[in-house]
Amino acid sequence: MNISVRGRRVPASPIRKLVPLAIDAERRGIKVYHLNIGQPDIETPPLFWEAIKSYGAKVLAYGNSQGDLDYIDSLIRYYRRYGIDFEPEDIVVTVGGSEAIVFSMLATSDPGDEFIIFEPFYTNYNGYAVMAGVKLVPITTSPENGYHLPAPEVIEEKITERTRGIFICTPNNPTGTVLTREEMEMIADIAERNELFVISDEVYREFVYEGNYTSVMHLPQVRDRAILLDSVSKRFSACGARIGNIASKNGEVMRSVLKFAQARLCPPSVEQYAAKNVFDNISDEYYRKMRDEYRRRRDVAIEELEKIPGAFCRKPSGAFYIMATLPVDDIEDFARWMLTDFSYNQTTTMIAPGPGFYATETLGKKEARIAYVLREEEIRSAMRTLAIGIERYNEGKR
Amino acid sequence: MNISVRGRRVPASPIRKLVPLAIDAERRGIKVYHLNIGQPDIETPPLFWEAIKSYGAKVLAYGNSQGDLDYIDSLIRYYRRYGIDFEPEDIVVTVGGSEAIVFSMLATSDPGDEFIIFEPFYTNYNGYAVMAGVKLVPITTSPENGYHLPAPEVIEEKITERTRGIFICTPNNPTGTVLTREEMEMIADIAERNELFVISDEVYREFVYEGNYTSVMHLPQVRDRAILLDSVSKRFSACGARIGNIASKNGEVMRSVLKFAQARLCPPSVEQYAAKNVFDNISDEYYRKMRDEYRRRRDVAIEELEKIPGAFCRKPSGAFYIMATLPVDDIEDFARWMLTDFSYNQTTTMIAPGPGFYATETLGKKEARIAYVLREEEIRSAMRTLAIGIERYNEGKR
Repeated sequence: MNISVRGRRVPASPIRKLVPLAIDAERRGIKVYHLNIGQPDIETPPLFWEAIKSYGAKVLAYGNSQGDLDYIDSLIRYYRRYGIDFEPEDIVVTVGGSEAIVFSMLATSDPGDEFIIFEPFYTNYNGYAVMAGVKLVPITTSPENGYHLPAPEVIEEKITERTRGIFICTPNNPTGTVLTREEMEMIADIAERNELFVISDEVYREFVYEGNYTSVMHLPQVRDRAILLDSVSKRFSACGARIGNIASKNGEVMRSVLKFAQARLCPPSVEQYAAKNVFDNISDEYYRKMRDEYRRRRDVAIEELEKIPGAFCRKPSGAFYIMATLPVDDIEDFARWMLTDFSYNQTTTMIAPGPGFYATETLGKKEARIAYVLREEEIRSAMRTLAIGIERYNEGKR
Repeated sequence: MNISVRGRRVPASPIRKLVPLAIDAERRGIKVYHLNIGQPDIETPPLFWEAIKSYGAKVLAYGNSQGDLDYIDSLIRYYRRYGIDFEPEDIVVTVGGSEAIVFSMLATSDPGDEFIIFEPFYTNYNGYAVMAGVKLVPITTSPENGYHLPAPEVIEEKITERTRGIFICTPNNPTGTVLTREEMEMIADIAERNELFVISDEVYREFVYEGNYTSVMHLPQVRDRAILLDSVSKRFSACGARIGNIASKNGEVMRSVLKFAQARLCPPSVEQYAAKNVFDNISDEYYRKMRDEYRRRRDVAIEELEKIPGAFCRKPSGAFYIMATLPVDDIEDFARWMLTDFSYNQTTTMIAPGPGFYATETLGKKEARIAYVLREEEIRSAMRTLAIGIERYNEGKR
């Protein structure tokens, strides 16, 4: 008796699969710097916790499948500040940004269909593609041109009769690249010419350090083809809240999403109430301070990375990740070794190996995603520990 | 540009699709008795709310994909009281029982595969079957024999080379039937003979009024074939918490489930903490009182139903639903009419139309699921309003 093919094929998360090794290391008394996961150490706003504590219901009842309507109103006001106009029926609240991804796939594709995606990309798209039975067709972007998009003909070459849409992520996880208005227009034109959906993951909207962010919803030519994926996880440092949303002006898409949403009943009620309190009352100052903090962290991470002989990266202009090329032959082996065989002053550094962020099998073997989600001095120590680790690892190989 | 076939095919929830009509009725000042949805009015235990208020973290961080290990320990202790032995690796915490359903399908089947299911069944299985691209092969059970299972040959007749498993639900939603030990053994034998998984939804474990509940985990012959689906929603009257779990002694299944779980990152953190506090500290008295309360509600609902000329139902021995045959020609039309055209003393009663609980298209047209989740006197009023509604509706048809 076998499990399913998809059950075997679904990849373990490259961000999470080394966690048992990290737990073992911690049990041995080693402090592990977690640069592997986009888990900010920034405190969740008190507005969130105050709402959690004052949640007044006596019965924790099922909520609306679409999401609480009051919360959706708050989201509408939030988007308006970015020049994006939604009506209540354009939005479905999801269980994290994760569920928004799978809903977008289910509503727009059938098994065997294809989506174009630019690699490296957020690794969990791989898991959802297996669940949805669809193929991710990768187009490789490279650090040499800052992970920006290739010419339109390179993209259109990959379009087949099974292609249903193009996935983009801006600001990007894992590259930190913010797509320019011109790039967004190019994607919109391709989508229009080829009748495709554009599915845009914009959860890092608030994390732009240089340049301007353009939303897929700013592009009138794809008004009916655009699907926005979003989440409060990073914005409010509330990853464990599991509150995201999907939004589109395409009524047919949203009616279909709502039916999928009905099957899973509702997103968590208490956290919607708490997230609403943050959206309604948070100051611009909060976002500005958070942005400044991450900009400094980025600069420290880059500064330390540049000291590692043979390491290479492009300075990212958004999100809180660096896709770095490291001077090791096999990053998977190195990442494990850092947890199982290495320590420096009773510390080690955990990174997310690059291959999990690529669909093309041969790529990413020298790359790692580094999440600069710790305080400046911790980032500095983590990067120095990483540098020493690389040196020792390569010595051992000689 | 079209949405997907599955996006069109996924059914709207029969429990939820009439909600907009109910909201309209309420706006017109009509009190709607919600017998359509399994949303208990029982208060969520103070232990739950106390934990929510005392959750001490400053950062609402990602949790483990498998679920918080402390919470899993509590679950293990809980199952032990029912004579079920799990190890930590046998359990993955899910976002409600809903996610447990889809994980069980994804881990054991591929698109085009089949599961046997006894109808009427919990309607949301239909939605998940569309998501997973699998076919639910229904075997009809009927009120005449208390919705108990047919002879093994009737079941084995439906097994094809694409059959991957048998779904059961005990105590059953929507019929309230508790499967006997003999029925469970029969299913286990069929599964063993035909190399199938047995996927058992036992979220109503605490709601047994007569007879004894047997878990799929009590059957040694399917130790490696059994998958348990569970949820705290009904047990703790915490439907909005979105905390469930899937469990199996089959390591391959659970490793695959864990990879699917990694793709969606983690279940909500705060609610796991709160549910743990309830599991660890709730008294047997709580469960006994809850059971007594629902038994009385059931008896009142049945008493009132029996007064309706032409209505028919079997007294269910578990869960908190009655699948009732009502003297109307078209239950869908009747259920709508109750919300749009009827009121009695400014009240009306909302029911879940039967056809949504069947996979066979012609069935359920005179049936409704009645959830007896309100206080005795409210149930009584709701059922009387229903009786008057039936009378008026049929008068109007003459």
